[in-house]
Amino acid sequence: MKISFVTTNKGKFAEIGEMMRSRGHEPVHLPIAYPEMQADSLEMVVIQGMEWLRKRYTTSILVDDSGLFIDALKGFPGVYSAHAYKTLRCDGILRLMKGIEDRSARFECVLGFEEPGGDLHIFKGVSKGIISESEQGAKGFGFDPIFIPEGYTQTFAELDMAVKNRISHRGRAFQKFFEFMEERSKG
Amino acid sequence: MKISFVTTNKGKFAEIGEMMRSRGHEPVHLPIAYPEMQADSLEMVVIQGMEWLRKRYTTSILVDDSGLFIDALKGFPGVYSAHAYKTLRCDGILRLMKGIEDRSARFECVLGFEEPGGDLHIFKGVSKGIISESEQGAKGFGFDPIFIPEGYTQTFAELDMAVKNRISHRGRAFQKFFEFMEERSKG
Repeated sequence: MKISFVTTNKGKFAEIGEMMRSRGHEPVHLPIAYPEMQADSLEMVVIQGMEWLRKRYTTSILVDDSGLFIDALKGFPGVYSAHAYKTLRCDGILRLMKGIEDRSARFECVLGFEEPGGDLHIFKGVSKGIISESEQGAKGFGFDPIFIPEGYTQTFAELDMAVKNRISHRGRAFQKFFEFMEERSKG
Repeated sequence: MKISFVTTNKGKFAEIGEMMRSRGHEPVHLPIAYPEMQADSLEMVVIQGMEWLRKRYTTSILVDDSGLFIDALKGFPGVYSAHAYKTLRCDGILRLMKGIEDRSARFECVLGFEEPGGDLHIFKGVSKGIISESEQGAKGFGFDPIFIPEGYTQTFAELDMAVKNRISHRGRAFQKFFEFMEERSKG
């Protein structure tokens, strides 16, 4: 099935492109910057973004919003992770976390999916872990080099994409999306 | 003239209330959280917020969005200053700026004003200065304790409100607004 994936982030499209093709979907890159809200949750951003998109596009649309939430920083950078990455990079987060013992954090990904005239479906994936002491690895994108997922000793940027896709916030959200699509195609 | 000032920030309303009354206006506090966009500029946030507000209110409306833009941090926290303050506080900014020589920064304030059925008017005020080495003072709100305006040795949080209102980003935007209102009342 042809699905337009809305993102201006090439790294993100490369990652989800592989996941979608492996499950028989045909991802089409729609590099549109839809208006994103300042909100407390990724869900709000996705719901409002979808409202804007559905007036303009007549294809099936998949939107992803994701963020890194650090406990010791009261959830910073959270919904504003893209801006924090652009301005502070990984190094800025490490400076904020210097000397802080509680390094627990989580990546969240919220997918919004809607077919023309259909309902909006939301799928959420969470990956818990810790902020590393230094930048490690060069794979992936964004804050991947400073996030070590639970049960691992390497950062997202050191893990192979196939491993990352299995355990990441985005991978988990997509697993829910794929299950939904497969369940539906049976019915 | 009665003007509804839209903000959920009490410190902000206290500050502008004094300014408006001193110029013969009657500020009414409208503590509404209008939807704010993720955007590169305060202007975009205000323009979009006004679009939402004008559908819902029939009074004259004044909206303020402001932010602290730090040169060495590529403009961080900028449009997202409220979230950065809520999560990182002044201390987080000082940690990010530790050891950084170029401490130049600016506060920006953008006011949007619209009367029922009228045009949208935008007034911008900028206050240049530097990020201090430590938190100083207890007046004002937000990042005031770490911002030293050009030509001064004290932070915004150490200056009297009357002084701050004369030189601050918000004060400057309001001066433009008051001039506009007075010019118009003559014509």
